[in-house]
Amino acid sequence: MSIPDPVFRPAFNITRASHVVHRVRDLAKSRAFYVDTLGFVVSHDDHDTLYLRGLEEGCHHSIVLKAGAEPACERVGLRVLTEDDLDRAEAHFRTSGLPTRWVQAPFQGRTLHTSDPAGTPLEICAAMQTKPRRIMHFETFHGACPQRIDHVQVLTRAVRPACEFYMAMGFRLSEYIVPDNSDELHAVFLQRKGNPHDIVFVNNAGPRLHHAAFTIPEVHHLMYICDLLGRNGFGAGVEWGPGRHFGPGYARFVYLRDPDGHRVELFTNHYQTIDAEDEPIRWEMSDLNTSRWGTFPPDSWRQEGSAFAGVAAGRANTSASAREAAIVR
Amino acid sequence: MSIPDPVFRPAFNITRASHVVHRVRDLAKSRAFYVDTLGFVVSHDDHDTLYLRGLEEGCHHSIVLKAGAEPACERVGLRVLTEDDLDRAEAHFRTSGLPTRWVQAPFQGRTLHTSDPAGTPLEICAAMQTKPRRIMHFETFHGACPQRIDHVQVLTRAVRPACEFYMAMGFRLSEYIVPDNSDELHAVFLQRKGNPHDIVFVNNAGPRLHHAAFTIPEVHHLMYICDLLGRNGFGAGVEWGPGRHFGPGYARFVYLRDPDGHRVELFTNHYQTIDAEDEPIRWEMSDLNTSRWGTFPPDSWRQEGSAFAGVAAGRANTSASAREAAIVR
Amino acid sequence: MSIPDPVFRPAFNITRASHVVHRVRDLAKSRAFYVDTLGFVVSHDDHDTLYLRGLEEGCHHSIVLKAGAEPACERVGLRVLTEDDLDRAEAHFRTSGLPTRWVQAPFQGRTLHTSDPAGTPLEICAAMQTKPRRIMHFETFHGACPQRIDHVQVLTRAVRPACEFYMAMGFRLSEYIVPDNSDELHAVFLQRKGNPHDIVFVNNAGPRLHHAAFTIPEVHHLMYICDLLGRNGFGAGVEWGPGRHFGPGYARFVYLRDPDGHRVELFTNHYQTIDAEDEPIRWEMSDLNTSRWGTFPPDSWRQEGSAFAGVAAGRANTSASAREAAIVR
Amino acid sequence: MSIPDPVFRPAFNITRASHVVHRVRDLAKSRAFYVDTLGFVVSHDDHDTLYLRGLEEGCHHSIVLKAGAEPACERVGLRVLTEDDLDRAEAHFRTSGLPTRWVQAPFQGRTLHTSDPAGTPLEICAAMQTKPRRIMHFETFHGACPQRIDHVQVLTRAVRPACEFYMAMGFRLSEYIVPDNSDELHAVFLQRKGNPHDIVFVNNAGPRLHHAAFTIPEVHHLMYICDLLGRNGFGAGVEWGPGRHFGPGYARFVYLRDPDGHRVELFTNHYQTIDAEDEPIRWEMSDLNTSRWGTFPPDSWRQEGSAFAGVAAGRANTSASAREAAIVR
Repeated sequence: MSIPDPVFRPAFNITRASHVVHRVRDLAKSRAFYVDTLGFVVSHDDHDTLYLRGLEEGCHHSIVLKAGAEPACERVGLRVLTEDDLDRAEAHFRTSGLPTRWVQAPFQGRTLHTSDPAGTPLEICAAMQTKPRRIMHFETFHGACPQRIDHVQVLTRAVRPACEFYMAMGFRLSEYIVPDNSDELHAVFLQRKGNPHDIVFVNNAGPRLHHAAFTIPEVHHLMYICDLLGRNGFGAGVEWGPGRHFGPGYARFVYLRDPDGHRVELFTNHYQTIDAEDEPIRWEMSDLNTSRWGTFPPDSWRQEGSAFAGVAAGRANTSASAREAAIVR
Repeated sequence: MSIPDPVFRPAFNITRASHVVHRVRDLAKSRAFYVDTLGFVVSHDDHDTLYLRGLEEGCHHSIVLKAGAEPACERVGLRVLTEDDLDRAEAHFRTSGLPTRWVQAPFQGRTLHTSDPAGTPLEICAAMQTKPRRIMHFETFHGACPQRIDHVQVLTRAVRPACEFYMAMGFRLSEYIVPDNSDELHAVFLQRKGNPHDIVFVNNAGPRLHHAAFTIPEVHHLMYICDLLGRNGFGAGVEWGPGRHFGPGYARFVYLRDPDGHRVELFTNHYQTIDAEDEPIRWEMSDLNTSRWGTFPPDSWRQEGSAFAGVAAGRANTSASAREAAIVR
Repeated sequence: MSIPDPVFRPAFNITRASHVVHRVRDLAKSRAFYVDTLGFVVSHDDHDTLYLRGLEEGCHHSIVLKAGAEPACERVGLRVLTEDDLDRAEAHFRTSGLPTRWVQAPFQGRTLHTSDPAGTPLEICAAMQTKPRRIMHFETFHGACPQRIDHVQVLTRAVRPACEFYMAMGFRLSEYIVPDNSDELHAVFLQRKGNPHDIVFVNNAGPRLHHAAFTIPEVHHLMYICDLLGRNGFGAGVEWGPGRHFGPGYARFVYLRDPDGHRVELFTNHYQTIDAEDEPIRWEMSDLNTSRWGTFPPDSWRQEGSAFAGVAAGRANTSASAREAAIVR
Repeated sequence: MSIPDPVFRPAFNITRASHVVHRVRDLAKSRAFYVDTLGFVVSHDDHDTLYLRGLEEGCHHSIVLKAGAEPACERVGLRVLTEDDLDRAEAHFRTSGLPTRWVQAPFQGRTLHTSDPAGTPLEICAAMQTKPRRIMHFETFHGACPQRIDHVQVLTRAVRPACEFYMAMGFRLSEYIVPDNSDELHAVFLQRKGNPHDIVFVNNAGPRLHHAAFTIPEVHHLMYICDLLGRNGFGAGVEWGPGRHFGPGYARFVYLRDPDGHRVELFTNHYQTIDAEDEPIRWEMSDLNTSRWGTFPPDSWRQEGSAFAGVAAGRANTSASAREAAIVR
């Protein structure tokens, strides 16, 4: 596969994945899951919408939960550095033939709604209200002590177009998966912030959101949060793990399903990848899982994801995509 | 169920479960598993037999591995406090109609071979050579940093006779499992040393050894040892976990199979149970797993165990015992 | 030093150190420290007295805090196994010329007040009301997640008489400290429950209580509780540590002073010592601290302790006892 | 203090602090400290020079140890993204009146030697040979499991000029310390890679290197590495901690002195700071240590640092700089 030069300067600076906006059916239940159990901080609660952030986040929200009739992911949020970057981003998406629209989003600066070639509905802004980081507010720590959003993973049949589009915006490909002896992209891990991924695209019926991932401090938090989830009635929501990825990212993870089925990954570790000589790591199917232990992901993890609100998603072809998904981890 | 008075003074003092003696087919492989990976200390290696102890153990061995043609568990070791206790124990087993025989066992004092009503081949002694505890020898710590043997679990159809026999020797019943609204004993957890168990009997075809359990220091060791097992070629030996027991003992565990299939439990936590008012905890089937998360034990964990050398074991009736085993955890 | 035979059977069975009774000036402050910060569970609060237990304790209390004008330790609690043991204990103390008195103590069975040759005011009982163990009640875990009382340490000039008295009651000497080339006992570590100590006597002006020690689960709890103490206004109460003892017990510890100056040790690890061949470990001054790192204990730790209510204590001879105390760790 | 706009685009892209070059008197001792104890990986050893990297680093070295007669820090290494950035950097330093020189440095691409206004001898390159990341090579993990270099701290009287110079090169000021009601810069924490600091300047006699800091995975590694250092004869090298910073960075740290007195910080946590709205955090003296616990830093930590080879350093004015240094933490 031809990899663009990792060091070119894009016309605008997307800095990181920043938030997800989910529709949920019962805000009280979501609050019990995300706030009372996982330990997210409530930045704002206006009865229809709950704005949450991790303990170390100084920005207003990394999760927005809106009451709705049907669960769906409304938007994946990205940040650019400046208002000028935002204008350039708008121009870039527009001239790429993608829909763009300026909207008002609470607690955010000027906000661009657009979507990428995979169909992911995006929300991009350069500014957000700030809130106190809770780094030292130990008396408020509980649950998994979630620190911050790290990345999102999107299911799509358009892995290569998505990859090329994001790389053209300055994302670097940190790792990717291909079938043995093939250059067909099965999964791509793209980053801006200097660790393995801000956004991941995996070949499956889509576009759908597979998960949003948040860092937690240490491996004992991975085990403890499962215990607490069980105790608080969310034990069935522990979908996979605690375990270790034996492929891209190498993370120690646990995957959870929230009360509406939205998937959350909590993980503890990521390496730094900043230097130009860091080449994308190529994984062929048979490289994966070399030193694996533990259970394989359940079918739900392989096949299910959150629909994007208002976006038609292809249907998961169970037999085909299971085979593909099985490659991933 | 009628529970004997927990505070009577038995005629002799069995103090704890102390060791297991296993036959293994390839000592080099066993050493790679137990020593190079799990982190047990070699107390003696005479080419045919490997004597291992945990990092905190001052006694010579808690695992004895003997080269043999077929894998089997030869003996479960128990300790009594004094030579006088040992003589009284011999008399008790003999007058109970059980076979007794004095043997020479390397690195041990006078040693009694006998068996219990479940058919478990026992090896009892009052003394063992001592070795330096490695508590502060940090430069030798690695792998799971196993500290010491804690208990063994035996499969048998004779759960009630085994329970009564051990209680008559001063073992206290810490926890037990029965079917709903029944007093039929499905599993009994018996202890002498002040935490939940030294020996456990579970209803299944037997007698067979289900596992020997060793304490490790902290939950991060549970996760790390899996990573290391995977890396050292033993990933498939991670049979179940890391997880949490939602019934007797509450342990955070991982179950491993050694290269010969002998099962090892590593776990991190146990409560103290010393006071006379600590009543045995009764678990009915429907009480178990109330706040569970994570995978259920695989069939292998439910059905398989080490044969005892020279002891005919009943066959596991898969459908029946799977149902029963499913109760246990 | 002549060590009594470790395996004789005492006339009665003291099982363990069980609780401390402290006078405190402000129960609300004590509650903020022990309950809201350290994480002890309130078993009963009758406005004048607060009864606390650790997360894993099934007995009613391991700390009793009584409102009083002056801080003092009222009693050190020990448990015997049965009421019969209690009667035999009373006879033993009485015939040893020590004061004995039967009292009513809330939530306890028949309770004996007496004292040992060091002058430690003791409270001994065979029964206590039970409370649910919180082992799996994860939603109530916080702070240091204290599990259970482990031991107490008493300052006295009568180390040898105390040692002999407790050994005559079946306590085993696990470790002891002497000056180089001397058999003068500087400190003795005595145990009944199978780990290094239930009660410790150290040579200093006394009798005074140096500390009560509680186990906590893992080393991250040691670091976290300091952070939380600082945040909750108790940072100055972190007297020494987190650190490692380079002598008896080897514990990873932190020593705290409660709002009245009563000292609490939180620690994570202890080895098992049950077998008859476990000989007392002799530490000469120059053996201690061989592989030490970190700060030496502050003068407060070396010299200060809680007065026992109504018991005249010798004065700490600062220069002499500092020299002696310096030996200890 | 006037803070430059955080979002301007510098003329060249310095990406991160990348390595330190130290002169040491005895490479075997240094190896015992850094490799056998701390757990760094040897990338190359040519008898005169030892090249080390952390477990997660894909670049060839983050520590270079050269045999020399006197201990000194030769260079602090910075990385730029591209060769073009390197040329622009050279021009910038040169036109700023600073010495620049192209050198050959083993395992690095074209390398620029220069210095900053504080007098720090710098070594800047755009490329380094790569080595396998050890992320999953668990069998080689030991000691503190150091992951990667994070930042360096330099002592200088020229804090403000240094701050302005680095900000003019695109560094962002994440935190800074001033006396109460003053804008005099006592310490500045400057970053390029999105967490609190790549380079820190603190007011003291200089230029001298205060420390190089490396991330380690979890808090238990902080405690364990001290135990291992003690055991391996380096216990006196544990200078301060394990503890928590109650000011800039909030890190959980331990400070070590290597066999030549070079200071190493190991720490576990850092927050992400990427967004333009993240304003520099201002600490006045009286803000610091609000919720502190634990020992204050020893005088050595406050006053001592590594001389830079061939660079005259001011003398530490003990009384004045102790007062100043006391502010820092």
